[in-house]
Amino acid sequence: MTIGQYASDTAKWLDPELGSVFSDEQKEDITVKAALYSLNAGGKRIRPLMMRMTAGMIGCSDEKMADVLYYAATLEMIHTYSLIHDDLPAMDNDDLRRGKPTCHKVFGEGIATLAGDLLLNTACERLFKIALSKPEYLYASYYMCKNAGLDGMVGGQSIDLDSEGKTIGLDLLYELQRKKTGALIESAVVTPYYLIKGLDEKQANEDITAGLLRKLAGHIGLAFQIRDDILDVLSDPSILGKNTGKDERDSKATFVTLLGLDGAQDKLSGEIKAAYEVLSALEKAGYDTNGYKVLTDYLEKRDS
Amino acid sequence: MTIGQYASDTAKWLDPELGSVFSDEQKEDITVKAALYSLNAGGKRIRPLMMRMTAGMIGCSDEKMADVLYYAATLEMIHTYSLIHDDLPAMDNDDLRRGKPTCHKVFGEGIATLAGDLLLNTACERLFKIALSKPEYLYASYYMCKNAGLDGMVGGQSIDLDSEGKTIGLDLLYELQRKKTGALIESAVVTPYYLIKGLDEKQANEDITAGLLRKLAGHIGLAFQIRDDILDVLSDPSILGKNTGKDERDSKATFVTLLGLDGAQDKLSGEIKAAYEVLSALEKAGYDTNGYKVLTDYLEKRDS
Repeated sequence: MTIGQYASDTAKWLDPELGSVFSDEQKEDITVKAALYSLNAGGKRIRPLMMRMTAGMIGCSDEKMADVLYYAATLEMIHTYSLIHDDLPAMDNDDLRRGKPTCHKVFGEGIATLAGDLLLNTACERLFKIALSKPEYLYASYYMCKNAGLDGMVGGQSIDLDSEGKTIGLDLLYELQRKKTGALIESAVVTPYYLIKGLDEKQANEDITAGLLRKLAGHIGLAFQIRDDILDVLSDPSILGKNTGKDERDSKATFVTLLGLDGAQDKLSGEIKAAYEVLSALEKAGYDTNGYKVLTDYLEKRDS
Repeated sequence: MTIGQYASDTAKWLDPELGSVFSDEQKEDITVKAALYSLNAGGKRIRPLMMRMTAGMIGCSDEKMADVLYYAATLEMIHTYSLIHDDLPAMDNDDLRRGKPTCHKVFGEGIATLAGDLLLNTACERLFKIALSKPEYLYASYYMCKNAGLDGMVGGQSIDLDSEGKTIGLDLLYELQRKKTGALIESAVVTPYYLIKGLDEKQANEDITAGLLRKLAGHIGLAFQIRDDILDVLSDPSILGKNTGKDERDSKATFVTLLGLDGAQDKLSGEIKAAYEVLSALEKAGYDTNGYKVLTDYLEKRDS
């Protein structure tokens, strides 16, 4: 299968679940409309795709797969809230996202801010709700919530905002990206395994496969980000669906601004190679890694 | 005891817990600094005070009281995030809160937006974390999260933003306030009971005392809001700690703009009377309602 086939299967799988997050009555609410506008604005669904790959790799009953889908929609809500807030004028000030006007451009800044709050809060409600009927998922729910917070995405965004106009070193850039984009990618790669195995915190930390998946997530998360930085320089806005050349205009520290284009390309190759090494360990342990190999190749070469 | 004594006891009880939410290392982060600035900006701590009153009313072991404190700090974090976002220029555009410059005035809008996100996410992490070691609290945690969302605070704020510049009726104003301010007050009044009794959803819905507490919360929540609307007209900014006369300038629908000052005062008296009726039912059931009587009298007459 090609990455395009995986992506279209993921969209078909995910979209009905996203459509059912809010009731018809709730969909009359202006903030729900704004949240759904961004949730359905044609994202790549790369995190849900990773969740399917992990589930496919380790094998998964239909019942568990329905729960993976529930968590995939939840993670996509968290990701979308972060995009809505990041795009605000006070943050990255982006007018265009995935080729469409950003949420605040359509609904205004007040509603957009609240739509982000709504998505985060609803995501957390969902994480609690499923644990009420399936207590064995409680740690997986906590893990997804925590990766969105100070130890993860919010912490990374904080370093990012705090670094504006400052010179930062490679170590801080690593920490920034590990948290800002890496943490949700870790949620995507690892949570399905926690769910399917019903792992608690101690088990999750001791399990060898879980450790390999966290390592894999680290490498593909970095590969994703480095390629993003490269695309900001090389790509065409009409292909990328957002404005390019922004990092340089905003004097943002990226892997390209710190290492140069060739240096960033080398770093990307290194992460891809490291991801392949983890995949080979997973293969030796008996797992089917074909999906992740297609994904890894895509992350190295994607042009949007 | 006077309300002032209750308030100062609440502050002494709550402040160390709020101080320990973030580690010393985390406190170096700019967004954590912004969150703590608002969290420590001298709020009335009315919700934590209510939580103490409920715990005192039904009786509570020291161990359970430590958990009530944990939830009280968590609820105060949710309340504070909502204030930070509400104060943003794109929402209510307030420069002054509790007599101090608002979060975005000190830290900028980007960091203030993120500080709100941080407080909400950290609150949810805390709600999960305690349920990991005490699964009997899972419903209480879900309940506190849900009351902050579309069925509660965020839903109320959405109606509020959507009503700007429109004429709304009393029914919609009730719904707005029941959700926007009422839902967190319900969390404050009711959650300690759920915790202390370890109630699940079914038990919480069937329990007679829980039903009375939800009713009490409804009346004191409305009383709180109506008095707020009256104070916006009558009070002095130096006493209130925020700007006054704002509702009229913003053409906001409030109990005063819809009912007039006398009508709002009548409505307030009605809610106070209804609250006393619930308290008398609780007293008949053997509970000590002295604390809530002092609070109810305060809500009727407070001038800040």
